Amino acid sequence: MDPTRPLDFLNESRNKRVIVELKNQKQYIGRLVSFDIHINIVLEDGEEHIDGNLNRKLGKIFIRGDTIILISSE
Amino acid sequence: MDPTRPLDFLNESRNKRVIVELKNQKQYIGRLVSFDIHINIVLEDGEEHIDGNLNRKLGKIFIRGDTIILISSE
Amino acid sequence: MDPTRPLDFLNESRNKRVIVELKNQKQYIGRLVSFDIHINIVLEDGEEHIDGNLNRKLGKIFIRGDTIILISSE
Amino acid sequence: MDPTRPLDFLNESRNKRVIVELKNQKQYIGRLVSFDIHINIVLEDGEEHIDGNLNRKLGKIFIRGDTIILISSE
Amino acid sequence: MDPTRPLDFLNESRNKRVIVELKNQKQYIGRLVSFDIHINIVLEDGEEHIDGNLNRKLGKIFIRGDTIILISSE
Amino acid sequence: MDPTRPLDFLNESRNKRVIVELKNQKQYIGRLVSFDIHINIVLEDGEEHIDGNLNRKLGKIFIRGDTIILISSE
Amino acid sequence: MDPTRPLDFLNESRNKRVIVELKNQKQYIGRLVSFDIHINIVLEDGEEHIDGNLNRKLGKIFIRGDTIILISSE
Repeated sequence: MDPTRPLDFLNESRNKRVIVELKNQKQYIGRLVSFDIHINIVLEDGEEHIDGNLNRKLGKIFIRGDTIILISSE
Repeated sequence: MDPTRPLDFLNESRNKRVIVELKNQKQYIGRLVSFDIHINIVLEDGEEHIDGNLNRKLGKIFIRGDTIILISSE
Repeated sequence: MDPTRPLDFLNESRNKRVIVELKNQKQYIGRLVSFDIHINIVLEDGEEHIDGNLNRKLGKIFIRGDTIILISSE
Repeated sequence: MDPTRPLDFLNESRNKRVIVELKNQKQYIGRLVSFDIHINIVLEDGEEHIDGNLNRKLGKIFIRGDTIILISSE
Repeated sequence: MDPTRPLDFLNESRNKRVIVELKNQKQYIGRLVSFDIHINIVLEDGEEHIDGNLNRKLGKIFIRGDTIILISSE
Repeated sequence: MDPTRPLDFLNESRNKRVIVELKNQKQYIGRLVSFDIHINIVLEDGEEHIDGNLNRKLGKIFIRGDTIILISSE
Repeated sequence: MDPTRPLDFLNESRNKRVIVELKNQKQYIGRLVSFDIHINIVLEDGEEHIDGNLNRKLGKIFIRGDTIILISSE
């Protein structure tokens, strides 16, 4: 491979707000605190959005990696 | 990686009440007793909630990690 | 990690009656004989319950771990 | 762990008739010839049952472990 | 374990006609050429059957193991 | 095992046209360029077929192995 | 195996625009920045397309490999 890997993007996104989209069609938006190779992640000031609308404020949340489809910057 | 990892959040949550949301849309709320790298977890004083309503009190429960979507603090 | 792990709860539950809930929404109740790290389990005097009603008595049963959602004490 | 493990039950069941229930809701009944750690199994004199009725006689059959929910003695 | 294992049955079935049933409810019938520990298999003179009727003749086919439910002798 | 393995068939099919059928019921037809043990494959001059009809021409395509049901010669 | 492997195609596609099709039927189009052996990928200038129409511009995105069906050149 080469030195640029997908997890580098997650590393650059630490402490920034990201949008995490799940297989169940919900979105979680928050500040990225940590992640691991399974793409388990922890967000701070997490918000749950459904169909683009804020549904719940959740504080700090752990999201299991196998439920994630994509992660983008807010 | 770096020293902050997703399991650190679960470690901080030991002995505190957490909300565990499953792929089958049920929520389990209880005091986090233990977890492992598969995110198998044990809760004490566990309650099952469906659509936000208390459905059953379950005592101590083991939840298999692959059924979990997210874990937050109560 | 620390010395308390999720499988400790299953270990404490050996020879006690447990309720095992599966992804197919059925429940199996019986005396926990054994388990392994995949959460494959064997119950003795196993009963199948559907919607809270006893459906069948099954004797000794092996349940494959990946079909399990949660395990609680009866 | 301890010396009693789930596969011990399958070992005791060798050469005996077992009922294997699959995720697709079919049951296969036959004499247990062999199994492995993935719970792949081979039955002899295998019969397929649907909704409790004999559907087909299949002779010797290999069943892939990841399709299995539970195994009980006939 | 013991010397009889599920893959022994597949080994005995080499060069014989087998019926392979998939999770998508289709059946493939052909002469078993090869298999591996993932239960990936290759059939020669493969035929696709749907609801018990011959649908297509396919020649030599590779079937990915994780789509297989069961394999029996024709 | 023995010297004939399922990947041998894929190896013989290199540079030949193959039909790849996916779990989502689409077919991809093209010249097999490469494959690996996960059955990830690359096709050249790839065509997407739906219900037996050409839907799109796609050029060179990478197909993730876990979406594949079967591979046959054209 | 031989020196041509599926990831070689992804390697050739670095810094080029690719179309990534997911199991949820959405397409993501963007410049391929990086990938790993799980087929996790990062795209730059990512666009989400639904039924062939541009739905959203997303900037830099991480896509988890297990949600991907195929990757082609734009």
